[in-house]
Amino acid sequence: MTPKKFPLPVLATAAVLSVTLGTALSAQEAGVNASTDTVFILNSLLFLMGGFLVFWMAAGFAMLEGGLVRSKNVTMQMTKNIALFSLASVAYYLVGYNLMYPLGESEFAAGAVDPDAINWLFYSLAEGTNDDGEAIESVVGYFGAIGPAIMEAVGIDAASADDYSYASTGSDFFFQLMFCAATASIVSGALAERIKLWPFLVFTVILTGVIYPIQASWKWGGGFLDTQYGFLDFAGSTVVHSVGGWAALVGAIILGPRIGKYKDGRVIPMMGSNLQMATLGTFILWLGWFGFNGGSQLAMGTIGDVADVSRIFANTNAAAAGGAITALILTQVLYKKPDLTMILNGALAGLVSITAEPLTPTLGSATLIGAVGGVIVVFAVPFLDKLKIDDVVGAIPVHLFAGIWGTMAVLITNPEATFMGQLMPIIIVGAFVVVTSAILWLILKAVMGIRVDEEAEITGLDTAELGMEAYPDFTKG
Amino acid sequence: MTPKKFPLPVLATAAVLSVTLGTALSAQEAGVNASTDTVFILNSLLFLMGGFLVFWMAAGFAMLEGGLVRSKNVTMQMTKNIALFSLASVAYYLVGYNLMYPLGESEFAAGAVDPDAINWLFYSLAEGTNDDGEAIESVVGYFGAIGPAIMEAVGIDAASADDYSYASTGSDFFFQLMFCAATASIVSGALAERIKLWPFLVFTVILTGVIYPIQASWKWGGGFLDTQYGFLDFAGSTVVHSVGGWAALVGAIILGPRIGKYKDGRVIPMMGSNLQMATLGTFILWLGWFGFNGGSQLAMGTIGDVADVSRIFANTNAAAAGGAITALILTQVLYKKPDLTMILNGALAGLVSITAEPLTPTLGSATLIGAVGGVIVVFAVPFLDKLKIDDVVGAIPVHLFAGIWGTMAVLITNPEATFMGQLMPIIIVGAFVVVTSAILWLILKAVMGIRVDEEAEITGLDTAELGMEAYPDFTKG
Amino acid sequence: MTPKKFPLPVLATAAVLSVTLGTALSAQEAGVNASTDTVFILNSLLFLMGGFLVFWMAAGFAMLEGGLVRSKNVTMQMTKNIALFSLASVAYYLVGYNLMYPLGESEFAAGAVDPDAINWLFYSLAEGTNDDGEAIESVVGYFGAIGPAIMEAVGIDAASADDYSYASTGSDFFFQLMFCAATASIVSGALAERIKLWPFLVFTVILTGVIYPIQASWKWGGGFLDTQYGFLDFAGSTVVHSVGGWAALVGAIILGPRIGKYKDGRVIPMMGSNLQMATLGTFILWLGWFGFNGGSQLAMGTIGDVADVSRIFANTNAAAAGGAITALILTQVLYKKPDLTMILNGALAGLVSITAEPLTPTLGSATLIGAVGGVIVVFAVPFLDKLKIDDVVGAIPVHLFAGIWGTMAVLITNPEATFMGQLMPIIIVGAFVVVTSAILWLILKAVMGIRVDEEAEITGLDTAELGMEAYPDFTKG
Repeated sequence: MTPKKFPLPVLATAAVLSVTLGTALSAQEAGVNASTDTVFILNSLLFLMGGFLVFWMAAGFAMLEGGLVRSKNVTMQMTKNIALFSLASVAYYLVGYNLMYPLGESEFAAGAVDPDAINWLFYSLAEGTNDDGEAIESVVGYFGAIGPAIMEAVGIDAASADDYSYASTGSDFFFQLMFCAATASIVSGALAERIKLWPFLVFTVILTGVIYPIQASWKWGGGFLDTQYGFLDFAGSTVVHSVGGWAALVGAIILGPRIGKYKDGRVIPMMGSNLQMATLGTFILWLGWFGFNGGSQLAMGTIGDVADVSRIFANTNAAAAGGAITALILTQVLYKKPDLTMILNGALAGLVSITAEPLTPTLGSATLIGAVGGVIVVFAVPFLDKLKIDDVVGAIPVHLFAGIWGTMAVLITNPEATFMGQLMPIIIVGAFVVVTSAILWLILKAVMGIRVDEEAEITGLDTAELGMEAYPDFTKG
Repeated sequence: MTPKKFPLPVLATAAVLSVTLGTALSAQEAGVNASTDTVFILNSLLFLMGGFLVFWMAAGFAMLEGGLVRSKNVTMQMTKNIALFSLASVAYYLVGYNLMYPLGESEFAAGAVDPDAINWLFYSLAEGTNDDGEAIESVVGYFGAIGPAIMEAVGIDAASADDYSYASTGSDFFFQLMFCAATASIVSGALAERIKLWPFLVFTVILTGVIYPIQASWKWGGGFLDTQYGFLDFAGSTVVHSVGGWAALVGAIILGPRIGKYKDGRVIPMMGSNLQMATLGTFILWLGWFGFNGGSQLAMGTIGDVADVSRIFANTNAAAAGGAITALILTQVLYKKPDLTMILNGALAGLVSITAEPLTPTLGSATLIGAVGGVIVVFAVPFLDKLKIDDVVGAIPVHLFAGIWGTMAVLITNPEATFMGQLMPIIIVGAFVVVTSAILWLILKAVMGIRVDEEAEITGLDTAELGMEAYPDFTKG
Repeated sequence: MTPKKFPLPVLATAAVLSVTLGTALSAQEAGVNASTDTVFILNSLLFLMGGFLVFWMAAGFAMLEGGLVRSKNVTMQMTKNIALFSLASVAYYLVGYNLMYPLGESEFAAGAVDPDAINWLFYSLAEGTNDDGEAIESVVGYFGAIGPAIMEAVGIDAASADDYSYASTGSDFFFQLMFCAATASIVSGALAERIKLWPFLVFTVILTGVIYPIQASWKWGGGFLDTQYGFLDFAGSTVVHSVGGWAALVGAIILGPRIGKYKDGRVIPMMGSNLQMATLGTFILWLGWFGFNGGSQLAMGTIGDVADVSRIFANTNAAAAGGAITALILTQVLYKKPDLTMILNGALAGLVSITAEPLTPTLGSATLIGAVGGVIVVFAVPFLDKLKIDDVVGAIPVHLFAGIWGTMAVLITNPEATFMGQLMPIIIVGAFVVVTSAILWLILKAVMGIRVDEEAEITGLDTAELGMEAYPDFTKG
């Protein structure tokens, strides 16, 4: 309802009051609302906890993907995952964070900037005030705001002139970085077993440094999707998951399927090397998602906020359960045998589905919203195969299709959501990511080549590209 | 000492005072006790943190069990674990939670209900008051109270008439759900490698939706074990672990041992497929147990509570260490070679042993209580084999036997515990679970059959039942 | 800047004031600073969260090491890791904790002891006051202070005479224990695949019960490295990591290389059995390090502290990323193929490098400090091989060499650091650990023998020493 990066007006007002009119704060009020300091501390703590849980998702993606590729490509998949996270950390720090929040968190949080004055992509600011209360009239566009993220000074104290009603910039940066990196993790699974390492990593740097932050700013930086469309995407079914999904889809199409995957009109199964690892990855992602969705409440310093975070935790779990159960039952009915990889992806699709609005649904609605995600996965995986789009781990059904569903499902649970207000941002973000990532993939293809040669693909990327097997001791069947 | 779901009277009184007499709250008192809001927030945060740590135990059980079954059954074990957790989430939401806390958390927490007036199973309420202060005289039995769990409304605020001295219902539900699911996870390991998927899942639904919640309400819902026996079971050595253990024991007996396990009076070892995974599972469970026991303090908003939670964390760790070390030394002495699976189960038995009372022991006592758990495991595993009860992962020694020991060990550390007050609840809960789960297993056996056919068992459930191998790339020895 | 275990004077003063002069505390001040209670709760919470994250590092070490040894030694490596952690828990409880903080945390925290009066090793106290305000003049040396760690009584409340401005002893013990255990985990990797189990475990007990705590007290117990050298080592690049590294180095030299590792002047690669597990271990360690460094802020109850903890989380992540990226690029340039094990160790070296000062660097500096750690690993691994020092997992480059680098890098980021103030403690701690652990290893060699026999080493420790394979189902290549 409110732009994601702006605290609830009520909270902001209360906080400002308690700072400004501190002396007038009665003991009764102190008993009813946590003090400004405590709010700042608890909000920051939410970001730190949420952040380390979302960090953990990087391990979840790595384990899931490593378990779903064949053993000859596991070392490469591990290399990609740890490298993409590391590069995302630097790219988001150097460019992405300030691109996403052009004026810095604090100005938005303090309400010093009129969000209506912000236009998209190359926007300018008509008016506003900076941290020191001076009026801003100069034009500040994206490319003026680029620069390394800067955190609070060491040992700040409450006596300074700053506003401490929100959370520490360090905790916010930490939390937001993890979202950005998750976007890149989504891509790596879909393109596994055939993409070259370095072009993939170059793509990651641009995705996390530029593409993700620009479109994220449209919603979470107080941009036009937020102000003009009233777009609701609580924790990022569209802003995070569909973005990774679109980039993966475009990449998978340009890259083409693995050798031997589609033969004489048939789909040849290429089984994952380690389903226990894939299960572990799913549990890790499920765990991390509590931080992903719960942390997106952005506040934990009031009764209302902590109760909301609690709802979100419970709903997030319910949606994952709904997705897994649906995939379990559906694969039993359709194929007479439950399919573990579908169940794992069903749980993940449930999680993506609830990400656009994990707060307002009841537990029952959350379960059902997740359940639809499970249905989507079961039908979308063979559908992509029919189109000969080879998505090794099922990332496109899970993150793109369920992400779209989740974003539209907000219409069911949130009366203030409008059909066009949800649909148009999906399309706009989709178009932006499809165009930019297609251009980028094609440039990379032309300049570096993006696909390993046939021999390397058949031998396996581990031996051919890295000279290091993941499981050297075990005879391959 | 106090019923588990009721906060310490002192806290409740203080909280009520600070809300009711807020205007009279002096600044000094504000400096000494955290405000009501902060208590509510910190208690809820404890449940959220504790809850995600106990969620993580679901992954721990999956990794432990997957590592201890043979590679031909790993996919099935993963399927069971993710499915049981998902189904538990729905069953506990739809039925279990309100069955366990028939009046809802808040009424108990607010002390509005006289616990002595509650009888077991089909109890009625003689008197009490509801949230709005109205007297309740009507009969409210279990089956009147069944219904989906309901959380706080979105964006509640302190100005409402509700009592915010405890914690958010959402966080409580989230935390309690994870306990319920853990009970089902215990069962899956013992019955591995031969039970059919669907009957196992049906059992899970009844266990988590009905059997677990009913007996848990006897203690944690303010029922007769709590009020009449003064039963002490802090985090559930009996209420959680022995329940899972009894259900597993009954299942293992009805199901019978794996083909070839007991031959000509000898026990044929069937080695786990991946001991590194089993070790990971143990570390995950150990980590999750800090949330399991620490969260069961149910409060973190005062100096006393956070210091108690800290004691619990330290004691929980000490007991696990004690169990592992004992199993290490004992297997060295008895078999001349340390046995890793015994050491892992020793650590887990130590954790189960301390679960009935992780707060009052000193670090030394906690270590010794856990150490006895380690001894139990080392002797109980061959003992069960002698009885030809085939428990694939050692769940019965760990969760049932060490659970009983832990419950009785409360007599050593808590002067207020009575022998019969500990023993009778163990027997009552045991009888209830044995009878109900035996009936359920026998019905399932008659209706669906619970055991896969011989060929499927020998081939492995992965290929026979699911058509999907966990490690397709590796030649089996 | 301040001794690690002493809270910032400002905080201490404020806390004392707010307790002593509680009645005079105005509502405004209550609005600006969290109350004493909340500070105590939040500090304790930081230790509990930090502690469980650092506990998780024990699993990380186990997974990393298990993934990097050959499959024939995995069961042994798991046994060592779970046993060393368990033994460290007991040794640190019985001896180490009080050896490290001879007067107990609270006396230091309350500022009741004049740190200048403390001399090292067999120091005495010239003056000071105890908890009850009585003057202490008696001599209190290390070996008088040894004894089991004691936590707060159950259910303490703010009305007692104690000082609650810091954190609960239980949480502090829990947190510090995990640091101690990490030191032992470092050793186990370097000596893998050839050391006997029991001598290794005896070494662990002495290391965690005596060697680590004594040297740690020199800095964190308010000892001479802190007071006389002004040594800065925020979370222990030297106090933890170099200590584990020195002990590992001495052990590796005395133990000698694995059979066949160095042959005819060539280094024979011995590939790890499971690189996905090794990657998981690295991600676990990375996650745990947020607790390791973040928790070492020792406080989270003020705006300044939580903002600092946030900086530390972000910087810790940045350094890991820097280390991984550098190793990725360097191995590509040097060997034409990225080396996953180098990248994993690069990330870990980045983490060790930032551990001496994760707070004051900017994100950019943190990335660069970590990057240098990555460079160190890439060059140090072959350098050790040239010296025929066989470090199976690369623990010595990561923890010792990067630990030294990180300690000296404080000179770049902290103006108050002096060259000799950083260098001398590195040398003193190094000399102490080298001498004590050499003596210990040599005694163990003479008394028990520390190396398995040739046949056992070639067969693999799992079969030869434990009679239990980690992966019995898979044919070895």
